[in-house]
Amino acid sequence: MHRFFVEADSIAGGRFPIPPSIAHQMTRVLRLRDGDEITLLDGIGNEVRCRLVGGDCVVLEWGAAGGEPKHQLTVWQALLKGDHLEPVVRHGTELGIARFGLFVSERCVARDLSPRKLERLRAIAREGAEQSERGILPPVDAPVTYAEALKAAAPGSVLLFERHDGKRLTDMDAPPGVFIGPEGGFSPGEVEAAERARLAIAGLGPRILRSETVAVAVAAAILSRTGDFA
Amino acid sequence: MHRFFVEADSIAGGRFPIPPSIAHQMTRVLRLRDGDEITLLDGIGNEVRCRLVGGDCVVLEWGAAGGEPKHQLTVWQALLKGDHLEPVVRHGTELGIARFGLFVSERCVARDLSPRKLERLRAIAREGAEQSERGILPPVDAPVTYAEALKAAAPGSVLLFERHDGKRLTDMDAPPGVFIGPEGGFSPGEVEAAERARLAIAGLGPRILRSETVAVAVAAAILSRTGDFA
Repeated sequence: MHRFFVEADSIAGGRFPIPPSIAHQMTRVLRLRDGDEITLLDGIGNEVRCRLVGGDCVVLEWGAAGGEPKHQLTVWQALLKGDHLEPVVRHGTELGIARFGLFVSERCVARDLSPRKLERLRAIAREGAEQSERGILPPVDAPVTYAEALKAAAPGSVLLFERHDGKRLTDMDAPPGVFIGPEGGFSPGEVEAAERARLAIAGLGPRILRSETVAVAVAAAILSRTGDFA
Repeated sequence: MHRFFVEADSIAGGRFPIPPSIAHQMTRVLRLRDGDEITLLDGIGNEVRCRLVGGDCVVLEWGAAGGEPKHQLTVWQALLKGDHLEPVVRHGTELGIARFGLFVSERCVARDLSPRKLERLRAIAREGAEQSERGILPPVDAPVTYAEALKAAAPGSVLLFERHDGKRLTDMDAPPGVFIGPEGGFSPGEVEAAERARLAIAGLGPRILRSETVAVAVAAAILSRTGDFA
């Protein structure tokens, strides 16, 4: 059955018009018709099974949306070159990342994200959340500076650092947030700033991952330890 | 420093010609010159640091190649549509998958793999292994039938099945092999065949992953439990 995230206030009462944000896709793209059933998600934890009747949605059943991990993981991701944030958001959303916090750091080749690209990432998150049957639409925040990201990070967040000889991520409790650098990694000054902000620093092991692989692999590792994946 | 996998017998003695399989890339693409250093990997566990001298490689140091996980994980992957095997092999190689066994199952849309596509996957594995600093080049085997794959699988291998209500992968010991289905999943008859072949059946949790995401996420989950990743 098709699943759609819609504005929470577009779902009202037992019968209401097809929410405008999905009307085109439903009737023109997917060609759904009277009698077809769909599931609407309000993005804040509820799902509503509906039948299409005369251009309206008629509620068949309200329920709590499933599919959300217990562990709420924020991925703080540096801007990446080209379209490399797209697989991060697409596959990260499927895995169950709770929030994407983007930031610009010293060695970022991409220094900003156009409004069009940000909208595209949000559309990818929406599509990924619908397809993977999540109950919540993970926010993709507009980029902030590295300093702002450090300030906003939850206590216990971890900065991931390749070729790090010290602690590994698996030596620690599952963190509420992870910081992932750009193609060139974090600078020594940035690692120090993270330490001053009381972030832990952790390595990922001997193999060097592409920057667009890190978020998905790390989310899978963390969420499997918390029982939320695999 | 650039790393190249070469045929083991092209490395001989203390000074030898640039191995023909990499000569073009080294001299024309990367434009390496006399005095530059490179690392050659024989693909069976050794690495050799060399300096280029007059078109030859002069050995500076022999060593054991690092970068290999202790846990040897074979991913048995059904053929996927389009180019979707490419991210599986690319990112799976970075993470440390030991071997890719391809197979054709009932619901595969792609029924075979052209020699050209197989060569391309092997080139992707080589590039991924060089970039991620692995010591071994993971083989990508030509596709076999599902029955042949079941017969070849190591004891203790696990068939992964979405929407499976029973055991989860994390309830089990880290397996030596995982079976990952095509876009449409495994048929009930194929699940029974796996059970008859004494494979365990395991679910991945409530979220539905895209077929090209599964191998990488599962490898990250398993290899983080064995201490080989994150």
